[in-house]
Amino acid sequence: VSREEPESILLPGGSEPSPDTRIWIGAGLLDRADRFLVSPSGRFVLISPPSAASAADRVRRRLEGRLIADIALDDRESSKTLSAIGGIADRALSAGVRRDDAVVAIGGGVTSDVAGLAAALLLRGLAWNAVPTTTGAMADAAIGGKTGVDHPAGKNLLGAFHPPRAVLLDPTAASTLPDRDFRAGLVEAFKAAWIADADLARRAAAALERIVAREEGALIELLAGAARVKASIVSSDPREGGRRRLLNFGHTLGHALEAAGEYRHLRHGEAVAWGICAALEISRRRCGLPRSDADGIREVLRRLGPYPEPVRDPRVLEPFLTRDKKATAGGIAAVLLEAAGRARVVEAVPAAEWLDAAAIMSFK
Amino acid sequence: VSREEPESILLPGGSEPSPDTRIWIGAGLLDRADRFLVSPSGRFVLISPPSAASAADRVRRRLEGRLIADIALDDRESSKTLSAIGGIADRALSAGVRRDDAVVAIGGGVTSDVAGLAAALLLRGLAWNAVPTTTGAMADAAIGGKTGVDHPAGKNLLGAFHPPRAVLLDPTAASTLPDRDFRAGLVEAFKAAWIADADLARRAAAALERIVAREEGALIELLAGAARVKASIVSSDPREGGRRRLLNFGHTLGHALEAAGEYRHLRHGEAVAWGICAALEISRRRCGLPRSDADGIREVLRRLGPYPEPVRDPRVLEPFLTRDKKATAGGIAAVLLEAAGRARVVEAVPAAEWLDAAAIMSFK
Repeated sequence: VSREEPESILLPGGSEPSPDTRIWIGAGLLDRADRFLVSPSGRFVLISPPSAASAADRVRRRLEGRLIADIALDDRESSKTLSAIGGIADRALSAGVRRDDAVVAIGGGVTSDVAGLAAALLLRGLAWNAVPTTTGAMADAAIGGKTGVDHPAGKNLLGAFHPPRAVLLDPTAASTLPDRDFRAGLVEAFKAAWIADADLARRAAAALERIVAREEGALIELLAGAARVKASIVSSDPREGGRRRLLNFGHTLGHALEAAGEYRHLRHGEAVAWGICAALEISRRRCGLPRSDADGIREVLRRLGPYPEPVRDPRVLEPFLTRDKKATAGGIAAVLLEAAGRARVVEAVPAAEWLDAAAIMSFK
Repeated sequence: VSREEPESILLPGGSEPSPDTRIWIGAGLLDRADRFLVSPSGRFVLISPPSAASAADRVRRRLEGRLIADIALDDRESSKTLSAIGGIADRALSAGVRRDDAVVAIGGGVTSDVAGLAAALLLRGLAWNAVPTTTGAMADAAIGGKTGVDHPAGKNLLGAFHPPRAVLLDPTAASTLPDRDFRAGLVEAFKAAWIADADLARRAAAALERIVAREEGALIELLAGAARVKASIVSSDPREGGRRRLLNFGHTLGHALEAAGEYRHLRHGEAVAWGICAALEISRRRCGLPRSDADGIREVLRRLGPYPEPVRDPRVLEPFLTRDKKATAGGIAAVLLEAAGRARVVEAVPAAEWLDAAAIMSFK
């Protein structure tokens, strides 16, 4: 991918409430952000947390004179609330935001979730753009139109489907990201490969050292592949009725581990890594996942770690599992692998089976 | 319309985020509400204000054992805020609401706006049902999918398009509505006729005394006609890019008058009546609206009054006019009449022209 002609992927949106998303991929896109960001009026409301300051500065320089508001967001998970939406609305409305203005969100997953929901609600829906600055947001959060805030009863319980008009995937945007976060975020990119693209999984595993060393070309190949998987799945099932659930691979137990650690102990990607590890056990038993495939995945995950030891006590984990959005009386819908690159949904795996897997899961 | 086989109107929604709305019309529907309300799981979250207690009781009796939460809403305009959405979310999520449960909102326009937005956001979108108990909500607010809350900068500035699955138009639901509110709400029903259905406008004007006396048959005819107009306009333009703007007839100045009276002095329908009165002046001059048509409309409006005298001071009104969501540098988009039953949008009427009309408007 040259610096001159970036690659792009179209995620078709269908009708007007779900516009098309154009995903641009390339190193250095941020320094030409004005070419890719979409605003019907040409004016923008910029939303970014302090942690994304250097990426935000690069975008700011390209939008000089076109920012009607420049809003600092607290992007800790604990601040991902409905009142954060109110705060953004205060700033944008005082600045005189109009229906044809657009939001640009620069940051990690919390930023795109919150800013995307603010865009969905302001004047009943502004266009928005996502500039992810973490590997996790590049691989997952910024693509697909899910926006939302948390509630004491659980994560992302209030939200909307509101796809961004443009996503800028620029690995240089993550240049100041701490190494632990950088690696944890890549779990989501590999996840995309494991559920739907065996060839990508193979190539990315082979390039793992270069990826972890942040080599631009290798990173772009993985992120573009993951974006292509996600775009293909989301466009076939925008509202998560069926196939989109495959993207939750590793997330059923992962969410429970994250919640049991009060969202501080484990990064999201780390919890998903543990969740995948447990799902491999169940996939071996229920879907005939070959041992060599499971071992290969575990090896990649081990290299993206180390991860803090999670809560394994079934008495602690069980309530978090059974309050999952996908839980029913018969058990919890599980995404399992038949092979590296081929996933399917098994409708009702009993909580006990997840808890057994959690007790013994290991990357060794 | 017999009590056995209620009439219904289908408002097609298109893609999944905008489902079809089925509008049921008939006296006594509330006492068979279980037949018409839609919930994928069969379970409901009921939301209603104290003012709609008797209608809510009738629905409650039909949903016995199927309510997972019964939430009281403060439906004053001043309580139509993002934190009201948070309050509903607290109650619904503590009750264990699931994605296949549905909301039923029983009340006036504030109730359907707030409960509809809560439904839009809960778990990224629950199905919902509207049971309007005011003539204004029956004629307008409950149909068409606009939901929202206010912000200090203006009304309905945060919201979503989230159409209800079913609307129950039952004139007996308004039986305890004070007469002033009953008449003010009918302004919106006549508005629908004036913008798009000359025949309905003629028939309803002829039946005006029976309508104001709350005669079921006459009321149902007007409400069904208004619902048909609104459904037809909304289905041709769900996101208000073009034709849907016609529904704002009387609302440009109306919103300014309402805001200048701090939403206490005038009912919404009363402000719209004054706004229509001013729009008739401008329509005469710019669109050749025949004098006899203007006189006929004014006569109906006079009979739906009396209305409190509005603020007419241009220095007070102007800021409220120019902050209109539809304002641009060249003026404010105006909905004007060419004849009773035929409206069009004139893109930029200068604020001064509205202020001149406001200074002299009269129902005489």
